[in-house]
Amino acid sequence: MSRPAKRIVLVGFGAVGRAFARLVDERAGAPATTAGRPALSIAAIATTHGTWIRGKDGSELDPAQVADELELGRPFEDVPGVDPRLDGLRAIGEIPADLLVEAGPTDLTDGEPGTSYIRAAFERDWDVVVASKGAMVVHGPELIETASRRGRQLRYGAAAAAALPTLDVARWGLTGARVERIEGILNGTSNAILTDMRRKGSTFAEALARAQAAGTAERDPRLDVGGWDTAAKLVLIAGAVWEAPLEFKDAEVSGVEAVSPPDIAAASSRDGTIRLLGTAWLEGRQPRVRVGVVELPGDHPLAHVDGAEKAITFVTDTLGRITVAGGESSPRAAAAALLRDVLNLAGCHGPMSVG
Amino acid sequence: MSRPAKRIVLVGFGAVGRAFARLVDERAGAPATTAGRPALSIAAIATTHGTWIRGKDGSELDPAQVADELELGRPFEDVPGVDPRLDGLRAIGEIPADLLVEAGPTDLTDGEPGTSYIRAAFERDWDVVVASKGAMVVHGPELIETASRRGRQLRYGAAAAAALPTLDVARWGLTGARVERIEGILNGTSNAILTDMRRKGSTFAEALARAQAAGTAERDPRLDVGGWDTAAKLVLIAGAVWEAPLEFKDAEVSGVEAVSPPDIAAASSRDGTIRLLGTAWLEGRQPRVRVGVVELPGDHPLAHVDGAEKAITFVTDTLGRITVAGGESSPRAAAAALLRDVLNLAGCHGPMSVG
Repeated sequence: MSRPAKRIVLVGFGAVGRAFARLVDERAGAPATTAGRPALSIAAIATTHGTWIRGKDGSELDPAQVADELELGRPFEDVPGVDPRLDGLRAIGEIPADLLVEAGPTDLTDGEPGTSYIRAAFERDWDVVVASKGAMVVHGPELIETASRRGRQLRYGAAAAAALPTLDVARWGLTGARVERIEGILNGTSNAILTDMRRKGSTFAEALARAQAAGTAERDPRLDVGGWDTAAKLVLIAGAVWEAPLEFKDAEVSGVEAVSPPDIAAASSRDGTIRLLGTAWLEGRQPRVRVGVVELPGDHPLAHVDGAEKAITFVTDTLGRITVAGGESSPRAAAAALLRDVLNLAGCHGPMSVG
Repeated sequence: MSRPAKRIVLVGFGAVGRAFARLVDERAGAPATTAGRPALSIAAIATTHGTWIRGKDGSELDPAQVADELELGRPFEDVPGVDPRLDGLRAIGEIPADLLVEAGPTDLTDGEPGTSYIRAAFERDWDVVVASKGAMVVHGPELIETASRRGRQLRYGAAAAAALPTLDVARWGLTGARVERIEGILNGTSNAILTDMRRKGSTFAEALARAQAAGTAERDPRLDVGGWDTAAKLVLIAGAVWEAPLEFKDAEVSGVEAVSPPDIAAASSRDGTIRLLGTAWLEGRQPRVRVGVVELPGDHPLAHVDGAEKAITFVTDTLGRITVAGGESSPRAAAAALLRDVLNLAGCHGPMSVG
């Protein structure tokens, strides 16, 4: 069985976008794909420096080779096939395609530029797969409603903890059960800092400085250690699980900055552990989301999630408590999460593996 | 949007079958179901004492009420609507339906009677959802091939660790990644006995006797403590993940009977823990499955799975290591796993929750 390739416009060509181009090339391009799932073809790559279009001006580069060119230091606008005057919005308006993959920078304040790209893709009746959180946490309810009204699909698992399959487990692993409560350790940086504080007995400032020196914490760590990244992920997950409109501003958020070595020592003396926990539950039909520091007892399913690892627990009425943990933190793993969403929307009953 | 109800023939009406009837009644019957997924209707219930048929002889009982009658002590053959001369195979041959749900007793030696029921359902071009392991571990490759050839679906997640969503996570949570290795603590009884030995410093025989007295271990515990139950689940999971024909006889199996208190103490002294672990990996294109006692280091993702809990770790090439843990052990949870499979095959893009 052969189907026409699904044509993708990729917006954003940083580390995650480039890794996505390579993964598509490796395992979901036309020759490698077997029956049941359509092949994938990246038709265009839109960046702030213009848009690369497959085959333009006779260029025979494929997207993985465009990534190679950039990583060799060539400016994007000099890569064969790039139109430096074509911006992302016009590219979405003009290029024939089936699917937008959005891997651009995220802005948790206004959700741009992602939101405009997603709206434009729905105008053209494309499906949309989103990696950056901004658009979904600020305008999620509107975008979900638009997708539903136009009969299109919108997947944002890559924005909701990337490699850790939070939304896929909720959608396919808990079908028919009612989720009563969600608890998650969803920010690797904060968890790594708390783990480091416990192991070395150091202060928050010392552990943060070590993480920044190692490159595992950002120069401006407020999104991570302030709880906002955790809140963004949990808003997306809780909104999807309970199918309720939920935005960033609905979450009650605090961070790990005030945790002290005595707090951690006191918890350890009780066989407990201090964590930055995101918690979501229902009040009537309204989901509530809270992020803050809590002490977990030693037998809690999230008590042993150490270092930069992430995990989520769904408490259900009929299946019991289901915890998913792990997932690599890297641009390639985030790209693999995008590919998962693309393949899951492409074929319902295709083979389990690809390539 | 309204669709005709999907008609189910349920084979087996023990604790799991009865719980399934109640769950369908509670949350997936015609009035409760919203757009996107068809309603479910149990058209018949086949047992070794005959077959109940909806509406037969003017009976107005629904399946949950049939369960009530049995639990009040009424013999199945006396329940209104039951034909005591109609056996399961003839019921599948005669009753108009769309789907077989198989929840009968399991025989890991010959796979009967499940295998005959499943073959008969495919003859009628029904989809099949299986709870009992026997048919799948003995004749899995044949049954999967038949389903594929006839364009029908065969789901057996309820046989592969029940409430713990092993196959759903592999199918939807790891899409596009390559699974390199699988490790699982998949038998709650063995894990509870090892946990009890560690906590109380007791022998295997003492811990087994306590588990039998508490009703958490069978009178004949060999399937559990001998590793066969773990092997059966892992054969199903590995065969599905790697899409390779795999049967029970391909597994290398040993159990926990020989574990001694000094073994456990020695592991603890190294911050390790003794577990009955199922491991699967590829040799070339051939999956290999081994079950036996191993010592896990304290930072292994399965090291803290205690008591009757189950868990599985998938090691992948692009997403990293993903672990799923938990899931209740009860007839209602096993029935919820059947309902999950039924709903997942009924609708690809329906709403996440039901009812």
